[in-house]
Order: sequence, then C-alpha cells, then structure tokens
Amino acid sequence: MKLYVIGIGPGGADQMTPRALSAMQKSDIIAGYTVYIDLVRDYIGNKEILQTPMKQEIDRCVKARDAALTGKTVSMICSGDAGVYGMAGLMHEVCAEYPELEIEVIPGITAACGGAAVLGAPLVHDFAVISLSDLLTPWETIAKRLDFASQADFSICLYNPSSRKRADYLQKACNIVLQSKAPDTPCGIVRNIGRDGEQGTICTLAELRDAKVDMFTTVFIGNSQTKVIHGKLVTPRGYENK
Amino acid sequence: MKLYVIGIGPGGADQMTPRALSAMQKSDIIAGYTVYIDLVRDYIGNKEILQTPMKQEIDRCVKARDAALTGKTVSMICSGDAGVYGMAGLMHEVCAEYPELEIEVIPGITAACGGAAVLGAPLVHDFAVISLSDLLTPWETIAKRLDFASQADFSICLYNPSSRKRADYLQKACNIVLQSKAPDTPCGIVRNIGRDGEQGTICTLAELRDAKVDMFTTVFIGNSQTKVIHGKLVTPRGYENK
Repeated sequence: MKLYVIGIGPGGADQMTPRALSAMQKSDIIAGYTVYIDLVRDYIGNKEILQTPMKQEIDRCVKARDAALTGKTVSMICSGDAGVYGMAGLMHEVCAEYPELEIEVIPGITAACGGAAVLGAPLVHDFAVISLSDLLTPWETIAKRLDFASQADFSICLYNPSSRKRADYLQKACNIVLQSKAPDTPCGIVRNIGRDGEQGTICTLAELRDAKVDMFTTVFIGNSQTKVIHGKLVTPRGYENK
Repeated sequence: MKLYVIGIGPGGADQMTPRALSAMQKSDIIAGYTVYIDLVRDYIGNKEILQTPMKQEIDRCVKARDAALTGKTVSMICSGDAGVYGMAGLMHEVCAEYPELEIEVIPGITAACGGAAVLGAPLVHDFAVISLSDLLTPWETIAKRLDFASQADFSICLYNPSSRKRADYLQKACNIVLQSKAPDTPCGIVRNIGRDGEQGTICTLAELRDAKVDMFTTVFIGNSQTKVIHGKLVTPRGYENK
C-alpha cells in the first residue's frame, strides 16, 4: 500500500520534476487542496480526486490515508516542497498506527529556492527559513527565532509573511530583525513565484518594514554581506572579498 | 547575451526540472564542475563543454562569462540548487561590470529538500541551513550560527559536514549544538542523495557526534518536537500536539 507525498514546485509543469509527475500518473487517487489540484489537472489524466479546502490539513491527510488503506495508490500533492511547511510531516503522523502503509516523500522546488532565483542569489550562504503564521506556533517562538537568526547574521526567508488577520506581522518581524541587522540591509519580495504575474522587488530592510505583502508573497532578508548588483540581490558565498 | 545558472538537482534526470533541461538544450555551451557535467552529458546532445576542476569556482564563472560575452548562450550547471551554496551568487559578482549579460537563475532540488524526503520530514517547520566548510567562512561565524540556531530551536541541516582536512568538524559542531539541544534529539544522515547508493540513517544527537560522515553526506538535526515514527524523522508542523 503506497502513499506518495509530492511537492509539485511553484505550479507550472516546467518546474515539476519527472519523479513527481510519474508518481501522480502511477496513482489511483490524487489528494490535495483544491487550488493545487487545479494546477496539475492537465497532467494527470482522468484520476479520482480527493480535495479539501484550505486549513483542513488533518482531515485531508486522514482521507488520503484511509483511501490508501483500501489498497489504492494515493498521491497527496503540496505546492513547493512537501517537506517545507507541507504535508510530509502530518502524513507520517496520521499514519503512525498503520506501519503497513509505505509513505514516499517526493521533493519539489520550495519557495525559498524558487523566489531566491527570481531575486538573484540571496540564499547562497547560510540561511534560516521562518514562517510568520502563528496558527500553529506561538508568536513568542517565532519572535525568538527571528531574533536569534538575525543575531547570527543568517540570510532569512520568511514564509506566510501576512494574511488578513495578521496584516502587521511583517512589520512586527522587521522590528525584531532591525535590532540586529542594519536598516539598509538589502531585502527582496517575490509575489506569485513561478506563476502568472511573478514579480520580484528589491528594497531595504527599513522599507520592507512598511511593505505591502500578502499570502502569495515570500520575503527575503539579506545578511551583512548581501549586496544589490544590477537590480539583483546577491549574497556572497564566502567572506573572501570582505 | 544570455547566461543560465542552473540547479540540476541531486543528479538523476528524474529530479531535474523540465525548465533546467530546456535551458541546457537551448544553450551553445555547458559549463561546470567535471562531475556535474558527467551527470547531464546524456541529456544535452552534442554541446561545447567548459569544465573546470573542483575549487576553481571563480575561474569557472569567468570562463562562462567570457564565453557568453562572445554572443554564445551559456549554461553554468550546479548540483542541487544553484542558489544554495551554488554558483548563482558568484556568477552575478563576476558579471558585475557587464550589465549587458542577462543572467537567469533556474532553481533545483537542493540537498536540504532531497535529503529531508529520504529521512521523512525533518524540515517541515522552521529550519536553518549551515555549511561546516571553513574554506570561505571563519569557523567563529559558523560556530556562532550553530549556537544561535540551536538556542532558537530550529531544525538544522548541515552541508559539507566533513572532508579529509576537517575530519572532526561534525564533532565540534555537535558539541556546540549539545549546549542547547538534548542528547536524545532525533537526527539523520543521508549519503548520496538521489544517486546510486542513497542511504538514510537515523540516530540521536549524541550518536551523531561520533558518526562517520564524508563530503557526500548531508546531516539533519531535529528541533525539540522532532520524533521518529516507523524509522522516519518527523518534525510536526506546529505545536498543536504539545
């Protein structure tokens, strides 16, 4: 009994790996959030679809598990990488009592990598990835990670920088980061990575604090060596030019 | 004048995106480290090859730049993602005086994502990526990042955990991490991600300290919530089950 948890990348077929595509095509059932199902519908043929709305992640994984337990091969699809804020962890958790289920995680291009490529090369050296969503994580934990990552001079990639209920979270995050990083630290914002309307913007950390972002945005904050070269955000790989 | 900097993923064609493959096929010249050139030779047809040995990264980028300046389309290939310890940054730096060169970075599956998928789902929540190579970074900087990342309870992915000259670096790194993380923190090691001989191993942080690793290994250290489920390393996405 086989359950794939698949990262489909940013959305387009050109950034989905053959391994991801092949697993979907070998499956009897494709499970996932409605928006992601729509992204792959053209490539999977006529499959049974198990879709659930946003935020019903546990329900989504349980349904996929139960379908796999009937002997069907099931693919649970995630945007980006299944292992970065995706379903790979939760799927292992909901299947904990069913060791007979074989779970295979298939990686994809996550927004940190896809967005970095749009901006230039902000994550070429050590970096931290932090989600600003406090739905499942206390804000104190998020704040602590922002603070330590800034003190350590990591480049930082922020997932889920904003939503309607959390309109001021990027500002709160920048206020923490500004305690350790300079206001003129080069930063970047990417909207709709790998999709129609993809747009990268470069700004300073001070400007980022007041930037408008939404749930389709990924944010990048440079380290102390990051610079802007011809409109691209570039973090040197080492300190040879310091 | 076009210069692609391409992440080819772990190595096999099945984890290379169509976008990466298409850019190589559109190019006149493929540039890269000899070992990576060999990984793609079967897919690119009869192209001019510009290869340089390991560690001659600046020379490699300059040669690719100069070839592109003659009007040829050039692909510089990197294993994993071009933007994570890859050539994307250095290429922008060596082309700084040549704004007429258009550089396009094409992302790939980096070892953090590829290795995490082999182990289960260790990086599903916030994480830090740190290279233990001190060729271009002072050890003090690496040590500081290890310390802060551990204090912040990030999951941590270590690139370049060892080499012949740095045989004890993983041990030194674990000694720092052990100041903040428990000795029984679940960890994992992956060798030859996405290639022949791929092998994932789960251990504790205390065991990791004395593990044998080499330059083909990527190391994963869990956060305080990470657990082992049926031999897989799983970090919960949130703290709902705490």
